[in-house]
Amino acid sequence: MIAGESSQAYKETVTISMVTCRAIGIGTYLVRLGQRVIQIDNSHIILTGFGALNKLLGREVYSSNGQLGGIQIMYNNGTSHRTDVNDLDGIRSILRWLSYIPKSKGSALPIQPIRDPIERDIGFVPTKTPYDPRWMIEGKQNNMSNCWDSGFFDHGSWDEIMAAWAKTVVTGRARLGGIPIGVIAVETRTVELKLPADPANIDSEAKVVSQAGQVWFPDSAFKTAQAIQDFNNEELPLIIFANWRGFSGGMKDMYDQVVKFGAYIVDNLRDYKQPIFVYIPPFGELRGGAWVVIDATINEDYMEMYADPESRGGVLEPEGTVEVKFKLKDLFKTMARLDPTVRKIREQLAKTNLTPQEKSELERKLNDREKLLAPMYRQVATQFADSHDTPVRMQEKGVIQDIIPWRRARMFFYWRLRRKLRENEVCQMIQRANPELNKGQAEAMLRRWFVEDKGTIDAYLWDNNQDVVDWLTNQLDQNCPKPIIVENLRCLKRDSVLSKMRSMTHDLPEIRFDAVTHMVQEMSPTERNELIKTLIKLEVPGGAPAVTVDALPKSPIPPPVQADSDQ
Amino acid sequence: MIAGESSQAYKETVTISMVTCRAIGIGTYLVRLGQRVIQIDNSHIILTGFGALNKLLGREVYSSNGQLGGIQIMYNNGTSHRTDVNDLDGIRSILRWLSYIPKSKGSALPIQPIRDPIERDIGFVPTKTPYDPRWMIEGKQNNMSNCWDSGFFDHGSWDEIMAAWAKTVVTGRARLGGIPIGVIAVETRTVELKLPADPANIDSEAKVVSQAGQVWFPDSAFKTAQAIQDFNNEELPLIIFANWRGFSGGMKDMYDQVVKFGAYIVDNLRDYKQPIFVYIPPFGELRGGAWVVIDATINEDYMEMYADPESRGGVLEPEGTVEVKFKLKDLFKTMARLDPTVRKIREQLAKTNLTPQEKSELERKLNDREKLLAPMYRQVATQFADSHDTPVRMQEKGVIQDIIPWRRARMFFYWRLRRKLRENEVCQMIQRANPELNKGQAEAMLRRWFVEDKGTIDAYLWDNNQDVVDWLTNQLDQNCPKPIIVENLRCLKRDSVLSKMRSMTHDLPEIRFDAVTHMVQEMSPTERNELIKTLIKLEVPGGAPAVTVDALPKSPIPPPVQADSDQ
Repeated sequence: MIAGESSQAYKETVTISMVTCRAIGIGTYLVRLGQRVIQIDNSHIILTGFGALNKLLGREVYSSNGQLGGIQIMYNNGTSHRTDVNDLDGIRSILRWLSYIPKSKGSALPIQPIRDPIERDIGFVPTKTPYDPRWMIEGKQNNMSNCWDSGFFDHGSWDEIMAAWAKTVVTGRARLGGIPIGVIAVETRTVELKLPADPANIDSEAKVVSQAGQVWFPDSAFKTAQAIQDFNNEELPLIIFANWRGFSGGMKDMYDQVVKFGAYIVDNLRDYKQPIFVYIPPFGELRGGAWVVIDATINEDYMEMYADPESRGGVLEPEGTVEVKFKLKDLFKTMARLDPTVRKIREQLAKTNLTPQEKSELERKLNDREKLLAPMYRQVATQFADSHDTPVRMQEKGVIQDIIPWRRARMFFYWRLRRKLRENEVCQMIQRANPELNKGQAEAMLRRWFVEDKGTIDAYLWDNNQDVVDWLTNQLDQNCPKPIIVENLRCLKRDSVLSKMRSMTHDLPEIRFDAVTHMVQEMSPTERNELIKTLIKLEVPGGAPAVTVDALPKSPIPPPVQADSDQ
Repeated sequence: MIAGESSQAYKETVTISMVTCRAIGIGTYLVRLGQRVIQIDNSHIILTGFGALNKLLGREVYSSNGQLGGIQIMYNNGTSHRTDVNDLDGIRSILRWLSYIPKSKGSALPIQPIRDPIERDIGFVPTKTPYDPRWMIEGKQNNMSNCWDSGFFDHGSWDEIMAAWAKTVVTGRARLGGIPIGVIAVETRTVELKLPADPANIDSEAKVVSQAGQVWFPDSAFKTAQAIQDFNNEELPLIIFANWRGFSGGMKDMYDQVVKFGAYIVDNLRDYKQPIFVYIPPFGELRGGAWVVIDATINEDYMEMYADPESRGGVLEPEGTVEVKFKLKDLFKTMARLDPTVRKIREQLAKTNLTPQEKSELERKLNDREKLLAPMYRQVATQFADSHDTPVRMQEKGVIQDIIPWRRARMFFYWRLRRKLRENEVCQMIQRANPELNKGQAEAMLRRWFVEDKGTIDAYLWDNNQDVVDWLTNQLDQNCPKPIIVENLRCLKRDSVLSKMRSMTHDLPEIRFDAVTHMVQEMSPTERNELIKTLIKLEVPGGAPAVTVDALPKSPIPPPVQADSDQ
């Protein structure tokens, strides 16, 4: 029963477990069903004690429970999201995690005051050569200048989870101008995966496997999907610093179900209910199969995609495109068109009066020349192919929303995030007022209200995140002198409830009399008098219902929408 | 975009893909996102072509796409649920799968006429020694008598899926008296898992790992969870022939995330929205960690648990219980109490006037006697512990609903299944009529209606599945002379809509006038006249609202509930 309830609790709230001594059997399932696990050093997460296992195996295979479920097992396979040296540190970690998370489902994000200016440029700039992606996130100590190269997020706000598992992806929580946000970034360096030997199998031995950077493996795809799911349940917005050349498609990884875990990424992005920004950082790239699972159209209501001017994106890497679209024979054709020497030799070759000797001499020359030129031409071809994968092309194709230079990205995403959060808030209000509207319709409605309020001249301000944030904040303020949103929501709700009531009485006509009687009892005498007049009018032979409706404005209680408006 | 839509489609409908030539990149993700995959022999499910991979690796590692994503990879890792030799067979498989599945979400199950009598005994009986669980499901050819020992399900209705993957669990669809149902059973034999060598890694070699029967491994836990999820999306009921001694908790399997996949079983059972029967077959057992993830309280609204008289269930196996609760020193104490020889020696030893020689002689004798008796006493102790794990005890503890002998199980579960399906149907109607009721309340309400209809004398019939099925079928028949359910549903709906309307006008008083005006316009003149009278009465000074309510029964339109009742 507690297993079932834990499974439910993970979906309904934010569950965090701290394993401080030993979790065994059902205990282990409970911590896993709650997903977020902090494991204290020297504690164990096991299913069966080592003694019982030895008994079962008939020999002394294991010497401790730590061997089965210590942090070197459970932190390395991602069951434990974090380890701490003692209980106090564990509790501190829990409090820190909670500081990123809304106080209850549906509550606003816990936004802290801005301590690290959002206007500042980002100090650390990703390089072409492999680097630690954490530098991008939190900054790094610059040994040359002896100062701190700041990162994308607020200084000191980065909190990594599942660090030891699937190291080709980096996941955690951070703050952007005080706003908590889930973070997924990509390791660019090659990492080593140490597979332990199985003590129960004498044939087995420990192995070290290399995993290339910028590639999704079965474990890192699973980790990515897991992090997305956790952040979604925490109602955090999400930023993905996308920099993947693809999924590892070798036989081993195909057999190890990389496709199943990759598909989880799509499933979990599709379910996401908070803003997601996918951003390709400088020298980052996004290709083929990797793009497929994080494209913004997977969840158009919430996802947006951006890129740095120095990033690249496409189906194939330029070398691959050249391989397919600009084969060697195409390069030779290009040489024949462009290179004077090749052209001259070819012209000579085309002559009919050549001796076999001259001909073979010319062919040798042509061959030499082509061989000489080929690397250069291939380089140019690659450059040409690469020029199709620039952010400018991506934007023209409509696959990214905008090109955002890295140094200024912090500022841009801060305002974009604040705007999307506010917008979502209002869209939710709209959808609560009229549950039949989908997110797209609600967004369109909000935009219309903005334009109506600002007038067509200032309508362009819709494209300025900060202006929209200001407008929305002002609108939702209780002291707003002209609260368009609140007014319109009231209208919307009123219409929606009325139309719902209509459909209810239409489906179930027999309730009409009771419903009316009840409502009439709750009316004020003035309203009732008005109603009697209306009713009597209806009973006059030939009296059309339209008359009754026209009579309404005379009612002592005018419809509330107009009552509060400027008229 | 199609990835996102495929992910959604898997949840909203039944998606089946057939890979007939090659699925690559996004194509592979699409088939996986749709989950149910039929792979035709010689077709490939890959992410990157072998040529591109060779280029990337810098040497000729792979010689074909089949090596990367042929059936020996994709069927063996569960991505492909089934393989067929050609397209025609593949299409036939799809049609067969569809025959088990409702025509649309929320539709009734496609129940076929009974071709295999449900009253028959089941021919094949599970044995103490390992056997093929498929014999239990579909029956087997008896070589001795040369006839067919029938299985639990309708002859010829068994359709296995994911057969090559995680062979310690058997999953598929079958029919019970024509009703389609998802099936999960447990392999009792030890199976061999063949891990292929990785061509990209010269150090690696193919390995064969043994997996014991009756144990959940990471792969079989994943397969179990996957099957549950698929069947739930297909809106099939589910039967689990539970026979697990536990999860494999050795270091290798702990590292391989057995806990994560085991937790998926709980998550997916919790989400299940159709009847689930867990049944422990003859000589089957369910212990500790395995019980934890399939106990009926994980999803009380839909799960029920049963056991054969010859089955066993508990936290530990009897040997384990004796190890903990009846240690050697406890056995010695029991001997001292029960064995005359031991008692005599101990009495003599207790005397104070013994020479050291006599004493050591007696101690030797005692030791010999205890050694002689220990195995027998341990056997008795084991028997004693085992007697706590019988189905009788399980039922007394309330952890199983009933003890059902295997041979008659077909008949029992047929009627139980029909009853639960019908009950669910009515409960859904009740919940549609009043969305505020939960499943438990709806069930209690249905039971009350049954008792009200049958009278207290026949109320015991509620415990007879066939009688309840007959009653429900009769009740839902359009020609039912006394349709209690339909009547009560109408009442329920009316009350629920009225109370909803009340809360709507309470929350939004300003709509009251408009709502009333609208409803009044739709009323008949007679109703309106009645209303005017009521209104005028209300306006009489001192006229209490109560008067109005009392006046209602005189209305020309009596409340519809009474109108249709027996009065």
